[in-house]
This record gives sequence, C-alpha cells and structure tokens, in this order.
Amino acid sequence: MAAHDAGPDRGAGAGEVHHNGASPHVRANTDAYERLTGADPVLVGIERAGDVLPGMTPETILTSGPPTEWDALGEGQRRAVRAALRLEGLAADDDEAEQRIAAGDVTVEPCHHHGAVGSMAGIYTASMPVLVVQDRASGRYGYCTLYEGPSPRRLTYGFYDEQVEANLRWLTGTIAPSLAHAIDHRGGVELEPIIRRALRMGDELHSRNAAATLLLLRELAPGLLHDDRAHEGRGEAALAFLSASDLFFLHPGMAAAKAAADAASGIPGARVVTAMTISSVEFGIRVSGTGDSWFTAPVPPVEGTYFPGYSADDQAFIGGESMIVETVGLGGFSAAAAFALRQYAGGSAERMVEHTEEMYRITVGEHPGRTIPYLDRGAPVGIDVDAVVRSGVTPVIHMGLAHRDGGQIGAGVMRAPLEVFQQAHQALHQQEPAGSG
Amino acid sequence: MAAHDAGPDRGAGAGEVHHNGASPHVRANTDAYERLTGADPVLVGIERAGDVLPGMTPETILTSGPPTEWDALGEGQRRAVRAALRLEGLAADDDEAEQRIAAGDVTVEPCHHHGAVGSMAGIYTASMPVLVVQDRASGRYGYCTLYEGPSPRRLTYGFYDEQVEANLRWLTGTIAPSLAHAIDHRGGVELEPIIRRALRMGDELHSRNAAATLLLLRELAPGLLHDDRAHEGRGEAALAFLSASDLFFLHPGMAAAKAAADAASGIPGARVVTAMTISSVEFGIRVSGTGDSWFTAPVPPVEGTYFPGYSADDQAFIGGESMIVETVGLGGFSAAAAFALRQYAGGSAERMVEHTEEMYRITVGEHPGRTIPYLDRGAPVGIDVDAVVRSGVTPVIHMGLAHRDGGQIGAGVMRAPLEVFQQAHQALHQQEPAGSG
Repeated sequence: MAAHDAGPDRGAGAGEVHHNGASPHVRANTDAYERLTGADPVLVGIERAGDVLPGMTPETILTSGPPTEWDALGEGQRRAVRAALRLEGLAADDDEAEQRIAAGDVTVEPCHHHGAVGSMAGIYTASMPVLVVQDRASGRYGYCTLYEGPSPRRLTYGFYDEQVEANLRWLTGTIAPSLAHAIDHRGGVELEPIIRRALRMGDELHSRNAAATLLLLRELAPGLLHDDRAHEGRGEAALAFLSASDLFFLHPGMAAAKAAADAASGIPGARVVTAMTISSVEFGIRVSGTGDSWFTAPVPPVEGTYFPGYSADDQAFIGGESMIVETVGLGGFSAAAAFALRQYAGGSAERMVEHTEEMYRITVGEHPGRTIPYLDRGAPVGIDVDAVVRSGVTPVIHMGLAHRDGGQIGAGVMRAPLEVFQQAHQALHQQEPAGSG
Repeated sequence: MAAHDAGPDRGAGAGEVHHNGASPHVRANTDAYERLTGADPVLVGIERAGDVLPGMTPETILTSGPPTEWDALGEGQRRAVRAALRLEGLAADDDEAEQRIAAGDVTVEPCHHHGAVGSMAGIYTASMPVLVVQDRASGRYGYCTLYEGPSPRRLTYGFYDEQVEANLRWLTGTIAPSLAHAIDHRGGVELEPIIRRALRMGDELHSRNAAATLLLLRELAPGLLHDDRAHEGRGEAALAFLSASDLFFLHPGMAAAKAAADAASGIPGARVVTAMTISSVEFGIRVSGTGDSWFTAPVPPVEGTYFPGYSADDQAFIGGESMIVETVGLGGFSAAAAFALRQYAGGSAERMVEHTEEMYRITVGEHPGRTIPYLDRGAPVGIDVDAVVRSGVTPVIHMGLAHRDGGQIGAGVMRAPLEVFQQAHQALHQQEPAGSG
C-alpha cells in the first residue's frame, strides 16, 4: 500500500536488506504493519471488568506501566491503587490497603498483561465497567475503562475523595448501562471511520479527541434516545455526559489501538513496537518479535505546558498507557493533524509538522486510510526498532500531566528514551543466526 | 484588537490615511469591522417565512443575486423559481408559473432585500420554514431556509420532482417543528462559539461545515430527545436528519453572517463590503458606505472540481448567496483552516494558505476570536474596497456547483470580479469632498 522505504537514515549498512522483500525481517515488519493498518476496531459493548478481562479476579487491581515492584512505584501511583482497593471494598482505608497488598491478598498487575490499557495511573478493579473493542480483522479484543469526566480530579489522575467515588458509582450504575444500551441499539460502533474522519477534523486522537467524541456521540445519540424511552432521564444523563467531554473518545481509541497492537505482536523477527507505557518510574516497550518481553528505562522528562497556577514543580509521573495510540501512529505521530493543540504540543505548527516528519523516518509505512490533511500523507505507522536505533530519532508522545497530589494540571510532549530501543535491538539481533541481517 | 494596517499594497498614496486614526473613513472602516467581529449571533427559532421576513407576501418568491430582470435570468434559476410557484400552489405547472410572473401576479425579488440569504438559486416561498438568527450585539435578524438534505437533487440546486417536493413538505411538517422545539428547549443556540470551535476543527464554514454541524447537533440533541417524548418518532427523525448531513450548519451560518453584515451596513464613508451574491448571470456587491446600492458585473468563471461523471461542460450558474460567509471572513478567506477540503479549494495546502494570506491584504483586520490554527492568526475580516482596487487582489470564494439541468455536481473556487470593486470605489470617492482621501 504505502510501506515507505529506506530514508536517509536507513541506507547505511542495511540498505540492501530494506530493499530486499525476501529478507525475513522486512517481511515480518510488513506483516506487523499490515496487521496494524488493517485493523477494523468495533466498539461492541461495555462489560464488567471482572467478567471479561483475561485473568481478572475480584482481588486484582490493574495499574499502568511495565511490571514494577510495588515498593518501587511512586507515591501518586500507589495512592491511586490504594484508592482502588477502597472503591472495591477490599480495604477500609489506606493503611489496610497497604497491608493487604504487602500480604499478597490483593494482586497489583500491569494492565497490559490483561488485554487492557489504562489512562494515567490506569486503575482497574473487577467491578468497573470497561469498553470492549474487537478488531474484526484479527478477532482480538482490547479493553479500556470509561473516561471519568472533565473534572481534573479523577481516580486515574491519582485523586480520590467522596466526589470522585460518587462519580465512579454513577458511571457504573447509570452512564455505563445507558451507553451499553446505545451500543447494542447501534449493533456496535465501527471506530475506524471515526478515527479517519477525526484526523481530518483537527484531532490527533491522544491529547485532542474533540471531533472523535462528537462523531461517537452522533452514532450513540439515537440509542440514548431509545434508552431514555425505557428509563426516562437515563439516556438524557448519558447524552449530557458525552456532551460535556471532549476526551471521551480517547478511551475507546486506546482499546482499539490495544487490539491492533496485540494483533501485530508475536511475529518472529518483526522489529515493530507493540506497546509503549509508563509507570510512575519506568518507561517500557514491547516489540513484536520478542513477544511479551519488556525493555525498560527510567521515565524521561516531559516538555509540559501547565494550566494557570501550576508549574513543572507540581508535576509527578503516576503512570500512563494512552501512548498505545502513538504505538499505532496517532497522537504525537499525527501531530501535524492537530494544529489547534499547538500550545501543548511543541508551540508552533512548524514544530508539529517536524514531529510528524521525524516519525516517518522511524516507521515502517504510512497508513493507507488515516490521512493527515496538511501533509496529504497517511499517518506514520509501525515503529521500527532498527530505524530508531540507527537514526537516534525517538517516538514523540503527547500526554496529560498529573499533579503530585493528584489531578490534571497540564499536557505536554515526551520523547521515548533511546535506551529501550537499544535493548530491544540487541535482543532481536541475538535471536538471529549470524549474517542474517 | 487586531485591526491590521497598511500592508505593502496599502502604502502608496494613502499610507498616511491608513495610519491616521482621525481620518473619517478609517474610523468608519474600523466601525464596520467592529460590528462584523463583535456580532453575537444566536439561533432563536424556526418560523414561517411569510410570518417573519420583512416585506414577504404570499405572492412573493425570493431568489439569489442582485436585482435582475426576470427575462435576463438563466434557465436553471428560472426553473427553480417556477418550481417554487408550484410548491406554493401559485401555479399548476411551469407555463402557468411563467404567465403569473409575466402578469405581475407573483413578485420575484432578491433574498437580500428581505433580510435573507439563499443557498444556490436561493428559493423562498411564504410557507417555507426559515432559521431565525439574531445578532444580540446589534439586535439585527438574519434568515435562511433549512438545508434540504444530502441528496444532490434539491430545489435550491434547480431540481424539482415529486421526491424533492415530498422532502420539502416533510422538512416543513416534521423536521422544522422538531428542530424548533429543540431550539426553544435550549433557550436558543449561541452560534459564535460553534463557529470559533469549528474553525479549530477543519471547517472553513462554507464548503466544509462538518464540525459545526456536529457541534450544533450536540446542542440540539437533548431538545430532540425531549421532543420525542411528546411526539414519538419525530425527535428521532430530526436527529437522523441532522446526523445524515455535514452541511446543515451552512444555513444558520449564512443567517448569522447576514445579520452581522447588515449590522455593518450604512456607515457613512465605510468602504467595507456588506454583501456578495450571484444570480445566474450577475455578480453583485454592496458596500457599507453606499448602503443598499448594488455594484454588478457578469458572473466570473469558477475553478471547479467535479464529482465523478461530470465536467465543466455540465455546469451552469443558478445563483448563490452562501458567499455571505466570505463577506464576514469565512469560507475562502479561512481556507487555511480546512486542509481536508484541498481537492475542491485550490488543490494543495500551500495554495489554501496563499489564499488566506492574500485575503489579509484586502481586509480591515483579523477576527479577535475566530482563529485559524495553522496560522495562529484571526480570520481576515472586513473586505476593504480601496485595498481590493489598489492591490488588484479579489476575494476568494468557495462554492458548490450546479448541473445545468439541476443537482449538485461539484464544488470549487471563484474570484470575485475586480470591476464591482472599481465601481464601488468610484461611488465612494464621489461621495467625498475633494482632498479628503
């Protein structure tokens, strides 16, 4: 379709391999690229996490990042996990929560190990409603929790009080069932057409989901009207919830990206990244050809723009897995689609164009259906570990920023650390017989 | 605010005047600019044209363009007017329609003379529902008919058959009352925030209204849900109608622009354009300082992109007043906001940026609230007749294209003819005492 080939940084040493379609790892990369770009994600329902997430138990809490020891996690992320135990009735207070985790009564595990991705601290409990997205091309499922709402004070941002708890219970008891009805009424919602249109409407689908959320609202509105006939006030409430948010779509978008990335994983020899994530302390990636292995390094700094009254001094990392959308070519990779985001994503249109153009240098190809209007090119898709290591160009990631005491205080840009790609590169090359690449 | 001043084309001869705030016509231009940019348009309702349009009678048909003799109009526009008589029950067939018009039983007049603007042929009959927009800043009203729907076969495009008639009756009987209920339920819909957001979401608000239509749908959806409680199926139908269209917002946007342009009209000495319109044969403008006078020239050619199966040979002008949005700085003036439209608006992002940059050279200032994300500048607002004449740069206008036998067959770009600005320039300077400008 549009698998782009050896840029200036790809020639040296391995140029012939990249031009030779018979090379096993070029074929593997192309295979991974085709699974990423051929994904056909459909929002098929909203279910209880404990009922659908693989390996989820009533005593499991999921949180963001590569596997990290509990004691090594930062305080913000730990605070969010403790709050999850209280919400779930697994602990009466923070002290009991720490004790139960230390005793092993409750298991804290990475979202990615359960088919899921989490926003910020990435909290999942068994009773939470989750968006269920199926990639119809591969049959794979991806899961994500519901967006909590526009308040900067959210559990996912490490903040918990009576209001946050009441909001989560209202989401579970009122909003989720109404949205689930609307999804059923619609027979599922195809997400790929929404993603493609949203890119033409100023979203990059990470820090900006204004158009995608509206497009999803348009698909769900008739079902919400129907839900309201049976449960007067409920459909109206769900419609108001969807209308009050510009970021709702981030969550189904993350689930769609997770399903596609998992579909591209486990291809022998493929150097394509299938996960990027941070905990409060570590940045980790997974690569198709190395399966479930993680390559990790300390979380790099972020170039942030802060809401009025906040500064970099207030910021702390609490985790974040929404960068799964960068893994499939959205967010920072599609920066040039979303100039309205300039303030939080580089400062100028020129810089945003540069970011996207840099990403073409480290990806396998251009998405045949997801077009960036200003460039009239497909979004850069399929991060090639070899290209990152050879060029030194690292992925551009858009992200929200959390206050050290919880709550959102801004947004910004992170560059993935080169080190994790170097580790993956070494692991991939150790797999191969001498002289093969 | 951001009234920009003497560009390179403004210096020669009158540079000092432009830098001198005390000059009467600079003050007048600034006044007109402030009325255009200070407009606060609110969609306040949907009413029967005969009940609200100034001077409208049961025997009046409104059509697009500056005043033109019936016999001089092109066949496509005449066909649309004859169809309007049949729709309204003023004639049984086309022959009777021609006879009644010739006999003066029915009056055919310009939309602009009745506070209204029309899409393409611009047909109004007394019984049609019209969108009512009030500029809360000036108190002025602007009116526009409802968008007929996504079918290329529409009365406004000069096409009329049983299906078009049935659709118009369904709009009048079902869709308009439901939308009117939703507008009332909402207490009116402020349009300025929608226009500003839509510019940040890839619309230029003329050939592209995808985001604005979604944003309006979001405002109206709760009221449509309420309407459906009282009239089961009606709110649902109106929601489906809004959802099926990406251009619905063009019509309230035109009414908003008309209200603002009328608010800026009649300022002595102001050289700011307050109307641009075409009939099937003539292009006309009005200018603030010359009030209701029209300056006209033959309709210039259009650079069109045609839907598959059509070419320039199939195209005919039938009128068009949606260029009222260019009059207030949208459409072709804001081309650089809508790169997804490239195919129909210049062919490349670079060309679209050039179009908008050219428009800064002929306008009084930048809109303080309507920002073009790529440029990080306000939209160019307030076409200055003197600047057009001095620079030779003429307004860029986006427009839909009609088949000679009716129906939409493409979209394209027109440049307004220099001649009308030269006429206006002469008229404005004849008004002034010698030596004043």
